[in-house]
Amino acid sequence: MCSSGTYDETAGKVISCKAAVVWGPGQPFIIEQIQVDPPQKMEIRVKILYTSICHTDLNYWKGENESQQVFPRILGHEAIGIVESVGEGVVDIKEGDHVVPIFNGECGHCVYCKSEKTNLCEGFRVAPFKTVMENDRKTRFSTRDGQPIYHFLNTSTFSEYTVLDWACVVKIDPEAPLKQMTLLSCGVSTGLGAAWNTANVQAGSTVAIFGLGAVGLAVAEGARSRRASRIIGVDINPDKFVKGQAKGVTDFINPKDLDKSVHEKIMEMTGKGVDYSFECAGNVDVLREAFLSTHDGWGLTVILGIHATPRMLPLHPMDFFEGRKIVASVFGDFKGKTQLPQFARDSMRGVVNLDGFITHELPFDQINEAIQLLVDGKSLRCLLNL
Amino acid sequence: MCSSGTYDETAGKVISCKAAVVWGPGQPFIIEQIQVDPPQKMEIRVKILYTSICHTDLNYWKGENESQQVFPRILGHEAIGIVESVGEGVVDIKEGDHVVPIFNGECGHCVYCKSEKTNLCEGFRVAPFKTVMENDRKTRFSTRDGQPIYHFLNTSTFSEYTVLDWACVVKIDPEAPLKQMTLLSCGVSTGLGAAWNTANVQAGSTVAIFGLGAVGLAVAEGARSRRASRIIGVDINPDKFVKGQAKGVTDFINPKDLDKSVHEKIMEMTGKGVDYSFECAGNVDVLREAFLSTHDGWGLTVILGIHATPRMLPLHPMDFFEGRKIVASVFGDFKGKTQLPQFARDSMRGVVNLDGFITHELPFDQINEAIQLLVDGKSLRCLLNL
Repeated sequence: MCSSGTYDETAGKVISCKAAVVWGPGQPFIIEQIQVDPPQKMEIRVKILYTSICHTDLNYWKGENESQQVFPRILGHEAIGIVESVGEGVVDIKEGDHVVPIFNGECGHCVYCKSEKTNLCEGFRVAPFKTVMENDRKTRFSTRDGQPIYHFLNTSTFSEYTVLDWACVVKIDPEAPLKQMTLLSCGVSTGLGAAWNTANVQAGSTVAIFGLGAVGLAVAEGARSRRASRIIGVDINPDKFVKGQAKGVTDFINPKDLDKSVHEKIMEMTGKGVDYSFECAGNVDVLREAFLSTHDGWGLTVILGIHATPRMLPLHPMDFFEGRKIVASVFGDFKGKTQLPQFARDSMRGVVNLDGFITHELPFDQINEAIQLLVDGKSLRCLLNL
Repeated sequence: MCSSGTYDETAGKVISCKAAVVWGPGQPFIIEQIQVDPPQKMEIRVKILYTSICHTDLNYWKGENESQQVFPRILGHEAIGIVESVGEGVVDIKEGDHVVPIFNGECGHCVYCKSEKTNLCEGFRVAPFKTVMENDRKTRFSTRDGQPIYHFLNTSTFSEYTVLDWACVVKIDPEAPLKQMTLLSCGVSTGLGAAWNTANVQAGSTVAIFGLGAVGLAVAEGARSRRASRIIGVDINPDKFVKGQAKGVTDFINPKDLDKSVHEKIMEMTGKGVDYSFECAGNVDVLREAFLSTHDGWGLTVILGIHATPRMLPLHPMDFFEGRKIVASVFGDFKGKTQLPQFARDSMRGVVNLDGFITHELPFDQINEAIQLLVDGKSLRCLLNL
């Protein structure tokens, strides 16, 4: 598939292929023929092999913050693909390379990329309302009659071919297992990186994870691989507890079973609270519980959930004087191009175990069924095979 | 004064001396004769030479959180003194040593003291409602007719003699200038340590300080000594600007002179915001301005003000996804016994300049006048000479 010369006949030309296009908020994904322009300067055109669906896709599909949205649009940001062709200036990635798209890019030369303190690139950071390419502020997608189709999250992976900026393409080891590599694009990197990079979980430390979806379970895997001594999983869905155990969760709390608050329960269990808590639920009341569950003096709460609410952070300034800290983590604080290749190798060496995150697999044209599995809480990740 | 043997006649005995006693919330300080018991195990009795007044004294004098307060009480927590006698078990501090009391003690052996991540000692951290000694939960102060007088902030320095736990006594170089050493007890350590320890201000970085009282000016001195390139002072009192300049403040903003918010002004001045902001005003709206004034990606806001309000932190969880962080700093994150002796030496070597913080000096019996100077914003620190 990726032998030399395979793409010679498409390079530099418009490709006609299938994509799942959304024409309005909440409307079904329609698989249709689209046109994909060649990559421009520092852009890369990628043939997507597998893609999966994340809650963030659903949020923008449903049209939250509707006034800022444009349609038609191609969603999707978790995938693995193979480079079809590269634009002018791209020298380190070539046709046939295995690549993972990243929605939170890394240009490598801006003041942010040069700082060790952040992974928010100036030009290519996560930007849900950006709908065009950086080069010319235009789209590379169009309908058969030439109407523009808009981009999403620097990636737009629900398409047989997509065009990405170089900053948003990570080349990975061609020996890495293709399907699992889709996990590096978003949720699993976010959770695992939150444990590794944001919190820097130490061996022997204690952890609480609020919400055991794919991100929360990836936090558990990150904490387990760092040899945390105790990993407390909190979820109202008891089905998540079995999955959690496989990822190193040692204790489970179902808030519905308690006659007290979760943080009181965690204080009882641990004496003085956990060293790190991770909020993966997107609920401000849960966030407060996560904060109060940490050890005074040094407890760190990492915000991972997307809080689509006007409600403010339910903490008082004086709460911070007990030495508890709170930070948010975008993409697990991974600098994607610099660090994800090593993450891929770590998964190949067994340092980190990516089994269990992909719970379903369907052909691309069943994308609407795949979405329903996620909405219903039945899948962690459903892989779509293009 | 501190020659060997001076205190032989008082060691082990009750000392009768003068103290400024408060008998009820907001009532005048009354200078009267009190009895001070000898130090018990791991306690130290100190003859106070100079003390000064901090806003925290005023808060508890006025009786905020009144229901939890007890009177009569001896307030005061900034001072320099000389050891009169030591209790059983104290081996590294002896009669005649120059010492600085610290309200946020360091026992050295609890899990907190052994952690590099916090300066909140398990037994002797700041505890405004603690009124007795740790050993026997009793007071060492009494009226002439034997009524207990309560302790304050582990220190109670508005007295010619006070008794402190060993964990709350820092021995300093006898050559260090006595009067300035009172500044190490609280406000100046808090501000300077917030810059040095909490924020770890780097050379060439940019800083904004909201509120130019003693704490804010000490932040400026800390940032100046770390060679920050730009230090923006924000205060509604233009008199503070002159004092700020002497402490390295390079730019001034008086919010009253603006037709926009302070954070918009700071963004205009700096392009993308400051690397660090320090909130020394105790006002939640100012705290939000401080947060929004920092650079996305890595901006750090340090809370120093005491927020005596039921209002919550006016930030949204999603605000944190821009990479801005917020933490509080207690006592400038100094581990007092370990680090303050070096701070004293740094002040003697000119690494840090403590001039200008002590603006007034009065005899001890004019303590009520000294308080009024602080309330009226006329003094930074008024030293009381015992």
